Amino acid sequence: MFAPLESRRTRQWLLQNFGRTVEPARICLRLESGEQAGYAGPDAIATIVVRDANTLMRLVMNPEIEFGDAYADGRLRVEGNLAALLESAFRNLSRDRIGTPYARLASRWLAWKQNNTIHGSRENIHRHYDLTSDFYKLWLDSQLVYTCAYYADDSMNLEQAQVAKMDYVCRKLQLQPGESVVETGCGWGALALHMASHYGVRVRAFNISSEQVAFARRRAKQMGLDGQVEFVEDDYRNVSGDYDAFASIGMLEHVGKGHYGEMRQVIARTVKKTTRGLLHFIGRNRSNPLNAWIRKRIFPGAYPPTLREALELIEPLDLAVVDVENLRMHYARTLEEWLARFEKSANRVGEMFGAEFVRLWRLYLAGSLAGFRAGSLQLFQVLFAGSDCKLIPTTRHHLYRTEQTEEKELRWMHATP
Amino acid sequence: MFAPLESRRTRQWLLQNFGRTVEPARICLRLESGEQAGYAGPDAIATIVVRDANTLMRLVMNPEIEFGDAYADGRLRVEGNLAALLESAFRNLSRDRIGTPYARLASRWLAWKQNNTIHGSRENIHRHYDLTSDFYKLWLDSQLVYTCAYYADDSMNLEQAQVAKMDYVCRKLQLQPGESVVETGCGWGALALHMASHYGVRVRAFNISSEQVAFARRRAKQMGLDGQVEFVEDDYRNVSGDYDAFASIGMLEHVGKGHYGEMRQVIARTVKKTTRGLLHFIGRNRSNPLNAWIRKRIFPGAYPPTLREALELIEPLDLAVVDVENLRMHYARTLEEWLARFEKSANRVGEMFGAEFVRLWRLYLAGSLAGFRAGSLQLFQVLFAGSDCKLIPTTRHHLYRTEQTEEKELRWMHATP
Repeated sequence: MFAPLESRRTRQWLLQNFGRTVEPARICLRLESGEQAGYAGPDAIATIVVRDANTLMRLVMNPEIEFGDAYADGRLRVEGNLAALLESAFRNLSRDRIGTPYARLASRWLAWKQNNTIHGSRENIHRHYDLTSDFYKLWLDSQLVYTCAYYADDSMNLEQAQVAKMDYVCRKLQLQPGESVVETGCGWGALALHMASHYGVRVRAFNISSEQVAFARRRAKQMGLDGQVEFVEDDYRNVSGDYDAFASIGMLEHVGKGHYGEMRQVIARTVKKTTRGLLHFIGRNRSNPLNAWIRKRIFPGAYPPTLREALELIEPLDLAVVDVENLRMHYARTLEEWLARFEKSANRVGEMFGAEFVRLWRLYLAGSLAGFRAGSLQLFQVLFAGSDCKLIPTTRHHLYRTEQTEEKELRWMHATP
Repeated sequence: MFAPLESRRTRQWLLQNFGRTVEPARICLRLESGEQAGYAGPDAIATIVVRDANTLMRLVMNPEIEFGDAYADGRLRVEGNLAALLESAFRNLSRDRIGTPYARLASRWLAWKQNNTIHGSRENIHRHYDLTSDFYKLWLDSQLVYTCAYYADDSMNLEQAQVAKMDYVCRKLQLQPGESVVETGCGWGALALHMASHYGVRVRAFNISSEQVAFARRRAKQMGLDGQVEFVEDDYRNVSGDYDAFASIGMLEHVGKGHYGEMRQVIARTVKKTTRGLLHFIGRNRSNPLNAWIRKRIFPGAYPPTLREALELIEPLDLAVVDVENLRMHYARTLEEWLARFEKSANRVGEMFGAEFVRLWRLYLAGSLAGFRAGSLQLFQVLFAGSDCKLIPTTRHHLYRTEQTEEKELRWMHATP
């Protein structure tokens, strides 16, 4: 052990220093050796228990990365509700108090290492999305929609809310039978298949995760839609061709700020004067790098932009922003369901990938849930159109007409496989 | 006359040069002396008739300003539909083709001269809004709402659509009885009075047009709302106090890009973690100064920002953008009704201010109508909130519920004075 850490006073000082990072959140801190700090009242939200002074010192040096790493490998545990603890921490975190120069350097190094070049993107996406579909089947909905759901009404469950989201996107875009759509970043293909089967459009959907593309192609074949939906295993930068609509759901986060010029070129090539597009992405209120631990362990190279930063993709192209909706609380609810399903399958996940992996993913899901609840993460849907696009109605009534919703629900009931 | 203009060839060359500004719009050009250029087919949208070669030369030098000035003082007339002509021109105008260095210099000089300092703003606002309420009564709705209306359904007329707009703003903000609202730039006070009478809130409404404030105060007294609504004749920069909601309708256009820092400070002072605000403003797809003639003759110092530029007011404050709606086609329709009413009162306006004033205002109204139709102007409503604001529902269903609309309409019928 680093010698000074043998002093009880040093340990106490470190504990208090770490505690200040989240003040005034009602979070109690404890070292296994007995020292306590942080909130002392009986109504504490949760307690962070740190195994040893070494871990504590690393927490003070770089709390952003070390909290997750120590939690994942068991050097730190949480007594009480993890998501509630994180939410409270996020609400009270101030950018000024978190992060030593060392932590900032580590964060920048990570950004450089994980740059989303064509090659880097492939590696970054592979690390997360190619974990095997069997893993994701344990806790996502049956169609494997791995983006924010839309709880059009409160009684919906995850399954219904994901269908509602896909339908909401199609209705925002006002897809017409016979039209062609390009999708950049299509996950396991649920939206492309929904568009084709429910709206009669042709879809070309791009993705660089081979596992996801293989899965999506199999599903298209099973549904008899392989003539109508083409899944292309290629980078978004290589999108070409003419389309009536552009859609990108939960992919902009993976583009990275340094590559917005390339993404803008794709939009410029695909969205013209008479057509329209929709971007759905995790965003921020203020410009800030994504949590370094999440980038290191979960989403390499990811960056959630502010709405203003995302508009850099649209504004120079003379496209009109038609509608922006913030669905942050829908993502919180989606994550609640994902986390609950994940916990139910925790043993199975442990058998597949080990106990450390379970903790790592638990922390990621709980942390994301906390981020959306606290408002450190936002979810934006941005609909935009060329100035001669005649398809977008002048009011948004059509998105909320009750008869239509009921009719749609009937159609889903018949069509869901 | 400037000697070379006596040559027929020079005149023809100038005419063709001017024609290229709007190519390939189907617009025919003619000099009173007989020369023609531009579109020659029988399906021309309209013909621009220029009185003399001197005017023609000035049109080539600075079309943006000279078209309006020559139209207003009768050196240029339009045969055919003025708004259709302008719409077609706007659709075909390219930034690269319009404006000599002289025109750009004139535009910048104007921006400097009309800077919206506290003093400059007073002068700029006085020039437009203090023209006498009697003039505006001739062609606005009965409550003198001088901003984009909201045609919630197609059958609405201007009167109903302005009430629908005010109600839409209140419902987007989810105003609760007993709350307090601050409004920056309140026109003749219709929205503040609507908020107070229909939503039971207290309002402090700022405006630097003395004529409008006097009118609004009289109306508040007549409606028995002077205890609930305070009209303050002061600059937005002097707003202080705590409020539950912030609203600014059709005022950001007058702030000017160089003063967004001051406007941001006002929002920072008034919109906190648990409260919310709404900005409603004329915007653009791409950053571009407002038409120089409009700035010279109609709206000194005005600047319609892009959505991205407007977000400079919100993003640094860690407020979440909740909802953005583009109501461009609603402004086109509002302007159609204003223009039609204006034309009906043209004789009366002529008696009040002379024939040149009538042409000037006709061109401004037709030009704005054309701008919204062509997409060179947009209308954004931006709803934003602090991260702990609990009042904004997670879906937008509540804005479109039919029963509620009907109930509201009944309430309007009883409450409209």
